[in-house]
Amino acid sequence: MIERQSEAMRNVLLTIAYDGTDFCGWQIQPDQRSVQGEIERALSIVCDRAIRVNGTSRTDAGVHAYGQRASFQSDFSIPTDKIPVAANGLLVAAADRNRKNRRTSADVAILSAEDVPVYFHARFNSVGKKYIYKIRNSHAPDPFQRNYSYSVGKALDVRAMKKAAASLIGTFDFSAFQAAGGKEMESTVRTVYGTCIYTESSSKTIILEIIGDGFLYNMVRIIAGTLVDIGLGKKSPDEIPDIISGKCRQSAGHTAPPQGLYLAEVFYKKERMLESIKMMDGEQE
Amino acid sequence: MIERQSEAMRNVLLTIAYDGTDFCGWQIQPDQRSVQGEIERALSIVCDRAIRVNGTSRTDAGVHAYGQRASFQSDFSIPTDKIPVAANGLLVAAADRNRKNRRTSADVAILSAEDVPVYFHARFNSVGKKYIYKIRNSHAPDPFQRNYSYSVGKALDVRAMKKAAASLIGTFDFSAFQAAGGKEMESTVRTVYGTCIYTESSSKTIILEIIGDGFLYNMVRIIAGTLVDIGLGKKSPDEIPDIISGKCRQSAGHTAPPQGLYLAEVFYKKERMLESIKMMDGEQE
Repeated sequence: MIERQSEAMRNVLLTIAYDGTDFCGWQIQPDQRSVQGEIERALSIVCDRAIRVNGTSRTDAGVHAYGQRASFQSDFSIPTDKIPVAANGLLVAAADRNRKNRRTSADVAILSAEDVPVYFHARFNSVGKKYIYKIRNSHAPDPFQRNYSYSVGKALDVRAMKKAAASLIGTFDFSAFQAAGGKEMESTVRTVYGTCIYTESSSKTIILEIIGDGFLYNMVRIIAGTLVDIGLGKKSPDEIPDIISGKCRQSAGHTAPPQGLYLAEVFYKKERMLESIKMMDGEQE
Repeated sequence: MIERQSEAMRNVLLTIAYDGTDFCGWQIQPDQRSVQGEIERALSIVCDRAIRVNGTSRTDAGVHAYGQRASFQSDFSIPTDKIPVAANGLLVAAADRNRKNRRTSADVAILSAEDVPVYFHARFNSVGKKYIYKIRNSHAPDPFQRNYSYSVGKALDVRAMKKAAASLIGTFDFSAFQAAGGKEMESTVRTVYGTCIYTESSSKTIILEIIGDGFLYNMVRIIAGTLVDIGLGKKSPDEIPDIISGKCRQSAGHTAPPQGLYLAEVFYKKERMLESIKMMDGEQE
């Protein structure tokens, strides 16, 4: 009996995109609308049994994702390639509840689903992640950007920010860039494989891209806030090595707000991650 | 005494942008959050007296604006060029109320303020308006576009849509493109000066631009819905003249949803409008 169940057991890896504005974050919270909660509710209907998913990254309220990943195991019967369309239809209907205007798309969507070996786990098998942080740098307000970037009115020194971002690359104890609330027992050593800063002039937006093997709680937002402080001249880019070695949260900059942050990609293969790091070097120039 | 008041009376024309997602529309409604209500509350504080504004266009819930205009008369003392920054600060604070995440910009902003003659009225002095309607045409869902475009999964025939859009240009009784709720006493004759349809391939979006001397209730959304029906092959572009001359709402297409619609510009000078029509012809090619 046990053997038959395990034979029918399937393991599916999902790629998920969401606008984090109207979510309490990735993780299920009582009486709140979470991405995980919406995904699990839709999948439980599609698979006709209770589904729990393991996400790679517990993004906070307001944080977005172009490529969150999550895996789930069950012995359901729907073909894997039919899962996205079936689940997305339910996600649209759920997002439309309590909305006056009919929408034809939801604020969360499953972009793809693929079969993976039973031992595979979306979080533990990842070799790295890429985050993007968007900073709108203009004194002119843009009502359409308020949920999608950090708005900084004063002109930022992008060259100083680039220099600072480059000095974050390497394997360090990043305690100075960790918010309270991180797990104290875990190692705070992380490797940042690459960073890149460039300006998208049409939207007056400065974009930070960062790839690492993993990130501490709020690490990318504290890095973004520190880079903004450097761009404003409140800190020098030369301070980064001392901030890292001091391991003191107070010496790093402020925590940039969640709406500028995007989980861009989760890597399961080193080659794919190396390609992404190379592409970042191209954007930089 | 009356003379002194009228001497001190000033008339100011505002340009306003907003993301319509979280508003009940432009017009003040009891117990709802309207653009007009937010603007008037901020201006009443900035000007230190009760301010009522006249908007050019009563956009519906979910409809956006890049360049709404509104004028107001009062005998306040703040210099005109200081109004946007002062009011925008209050608009940000108001938008942040009830929000967990601190925002540095609001979903409505005054882009500019200028002095105009006392007889000037934002609505009655306009010679025309430009609207934009955005249709995302892809089977792949994009959670970031749900509030900012009409999502159509099936491939649209853009050539047929272009042909139909061109045949809307002219002076006609546009009753067929008017929703119930329009004022029955008013003339339903309007002049469409120009239309243009082009594809923004990076976002898989088909964009309709339309300039006219004025638009009936829901006219642009019914035009957009009719063009989508034509793009889907449900109607032929050759039917447009008959739909117009039939003056029957049922023969036109469906009403496209509000989130794709943007009030782009209000014209007060014919020359500026003619320039805009010329620019549309350039985009078309």
